[in-house]
Amino acid sequence: MSNTSLFTSESVSEGHPDKVADQISDGILDAILTEDPKARVACETMINTGMIVLSGEITTSAKIEYNEIAREVVNEIGYNHSDMGFDYESCAVLVALDKQSPDIAQGVDEGRGLDPNQGAGDQGLMFGFAVNETDVLMPAPITLAQRLTQRQSIVRNDGTLPWLRPDAKSQVTLRYEGTQPVGLDAVVLSTQHDEDISQKDLEEAIREEVLKPVLPEEWVTKDTKFHINPTGRFVIGGPVGDCGLTGRKIIVDTYGGMGRHGGGAFSGKDPSKVDRSAAYAGRYVAKNVVAAGLADRCEVQLSYAIGVAEPTSVRVETFGTAKISEDKLEQIVRDNFDLRPKGIVNMLDLLRPIYKKTAAYGHFGRTEDDITWEKTDKADALRKAAGI
Amino acid sequence: MSNTSLFTSESVSEGHPDKVADQISDGILDAILTEDPKARVACETMINTGMIVLSGEITTSAKIEYNEIAREVVNEIGYNHSDMGFDYESCAVLVALDKQSPDIAQGVDEGRGLDPNQGAGDQGLMFGFAVNETDVLMPAPITLAQRLTQRQSIVRNDGTLPWLRPDAKSQVTLRYEGTQPVGLDAVVLSTQHDEDISQKDLEEAIREEVLKPVLPEEWVTKDTKFHINPTGRFVIGGPVGDCGLTGRKIIVDTYGGMGRHGGGAFSGKDPSKVDRSAAYAGRYVAKNVVAAGLADRCEVQLSYAIGVAEPTSVRVETFGTAKISEDKLEQIVRDNFDLRPKGIVNMLDLLRPIYKKTAAYGHFGRTEDDITWEKTDKADALRKAAGI
Ligand SMILES: C[S@@+](CC[C@H](N)C(=O)[O-])C[C@H]1O[C@@H](n2cnc3c(N)ncnc32)[C@H](O)[C@@H]1O
Ligand SMILES: C[S@@+](CC[C@H](N)C(=O)[O-])C[C@H]1O[C@@H](n2cnc3c(N)ncnc32)[C@H](O)[C@@H]1O
Repeated sequence: MSNTSLFTSESVSEGHPDKVADQISDGILDAILTEDPKARVACETMINTGMIVLSGEITTSAKIEYNEIAREVVNEIGYNHSDMGFDYESCAVLVALDKQSPDIAQGVDEGRGLDPNQGAGDQGLMFGFAVNETDVLMPAPITLAQRLTQRQSIVRNDGTLPWLRPDAKSQVTLRYEGTQPVGLDAVVLSTQHDEDISQKDLEEAIREEVLKPVLPEEWVTKDTKFHINPTGRFVIGGPVGDCGLTGRKIIVDTYGGMGRHGGGAFSGKDPSKVDRSAAYAGRYVAKNVVAAGLADRCEVQLSYAIGVAEPTSVRVETFGTAKISEDKLEQIVRDNFDLRPKGIVNMLDLLRPIYKKTAAYGHFGRTEDDITWEKTDKADALRKAAGI
Repeated sequence: MSNTSLFTSESVSEGHPDKVADQISDGILDAILTEDPKARVACETMINTGMIVLSGEITTSAKIEYNEIAREVVNEIGYNHSDMGFDYESCAVLVALDKQSPDIAQGVDEGRGLDPNQGAGDQGLMFGFAVNETDVLMPAPITLAQRLTQRQSIVRNDGTLPWLRPDAKSQVTLRYEGTQPVGLDAVVLSTQHDEDISQKDLEEAIREEVLKPVLPEEWVTKDTKFHINPTGRFVIGGPVGDCGLTGRKIIVDTYGGMGRHGGGAFSGKDPSKVDRSAAYAGRYVAKNVVAAGLADRCEVQLSYAIGVAEPTSVRVETFGTAKISEDKLEQIVRDNFDLRPKGIVNMLDLLRPIYKKTAAYGHFGRTEDDITWEKTDKADALRKAAGI
């Protein structure tokens, strides 16, 4: 990398159709976990003009009004009138859910299948990442991108800009000198809006009420490029403008492309699915390593075989920023974190209905109290183990 | 990274439900492009027990039998009888397609909207990657993982192992010394099968007919761990065992997690969508840089604003392996590749019906003649520009 370089990340608001799908899937997951923490859930949502389809595999004793939950999630987001292009009350909801395959279940259940422990719910690879670029130990570009779309939601909901509609996207290109972010090269902000606001008024309002409150002043220069609603018109939006599917914003959900990704989606999946739980564990490990001061940047890769409890691989990479040998660091990680599926669920207390809120504005870098994988409560133990 | 480290990648076969969805979406795209190369296509598929749902946004003059194409794709893959759990003839096909939003279209069409050029079909970030680890300049783990699932398909279709069924997954953990892959740490292979084959016979046959022909002998040691059908039973498979969605195997589609990912999916999208076309262009750039000998490993990040032709950012990273300065390399890339949406379409001749085959076994590292983004025909020009 040359000494000066650019890095770009993007985010979308809670009204983006893929995120609507994610929130419906996780809304259903939460409703099920509230009644039946041992349920097996893989809930996929498709949403398009006038229609929501729920599919996937769910095995539970809970009595769930799938239809009602889906409608309520859409209502909360704000698609509540056909003038908006989508109305939670009058849309169709098709429910085409199946049960978990008995062949998978016997491999995953504790005490059944070839491995007597609780096997991983699927094979797969997952990455966790942390870097000391921000207070939440997340990369700066995704952090700013998320804050922009969150800010759009705030000024839409508190009435500051009443002509805003739920669908929005942001994109932030930061200039780095070496590994330090030093300035804003370009910002893209597209937001859905009512018919009767002009492009000029919209641009000005977005600049004042969305961009200025979020973007660090010292990073904005005369060379910073702004693209505000660059298509010139974004009245049609949400599920009518673009079909939404669960699991289609996996880079927005994680590190904005800065850390690597194993490919597994999160929303709608109960924590027996390592795609979700092991990605959370990977973040927890990486964040604690950085919080402990053992590295400035840390990426953890985990992988699993379906039906098998022990991870098939554990890799800790620090990109040359480790304060102790990486072999030692890997050993410390293995000693201090139980990375079998059941160990992760216990360590992070994952059998709770905490998922719907994670389905917008990122699963990582969050500060709510029940987001256990963001806690740095292992940092002391790691420091001690490292002899620091 | 410590000197010895593990890296894991996975692949899935053409019968995996997410890949079935990808192939249906790209089968429809190809049918449309055959008749109407200027069509706008964003086709999303959901497939589950007894049902295929087609959704998304399509604007075309072509007359398409959506229903028939979807059924034929499923038939070719081999889900052709209810004994298999899914039958292409008797399943439901729901078609819920809409047109491209006129607000998006006016921003993307050449000569309309705020930018008079053909604007990008969406905002977003895309990565291209290449590394001289294999002859196709792809990372070794994903290459082996893809060859394993491809091999499963070959021995299923040529009758060698007639009890195989279409759904399969592979996973390969390689041991690296520094940046060189040196051995196989673990291999996972799960394949769907007929009822009447025992776990023991299956294991032996998979070892002989799938693993041995693919895995480099010199990398297999007595410590290599093999997990063959680790759940112990995989008769139920395909869309009945797991709901499939378009765009849910984006890491299998690309670099197996070794290169980074911007999050955009490929299948079902015509090349005005930069999620697809710019990711192909990124690969083309990175591969030509490595083929030219200007770096051993190259990652390109591009980003776009919707409705705007010029990329909002271009970043070339070589992880310290560049033979010339990275600033110069970035300039050479800018001078030799037109990275505006229309430039990419022309450069790579993308308005052809070539996409269905890309929807299984990876979009990169392919050797077919019409896969233009894998050609190294710019290497000479790059070398010349670099003065080598
Ligand atoms: C551009 S659409 C993706 C392409 C779309 N499927 C198509 O067929 O054209 C992706 C996202 O862009 C945003 N979007 C929709 N309409 C837009 C417009 N007119 N201007 C800017 N952004 C828009 C929405 O957040 C939408 O979900
Ligand atoms: C395990 S499923 C994902 C989880 C699933 N949605 C659930 O609810 O349990 C993912 C993939 O694993 C493979 N698979 C399905 N059944 C399997 C079995 N019995 N043993 C091993 N792999 C299986 C198929 O390729 C399937 O698409």
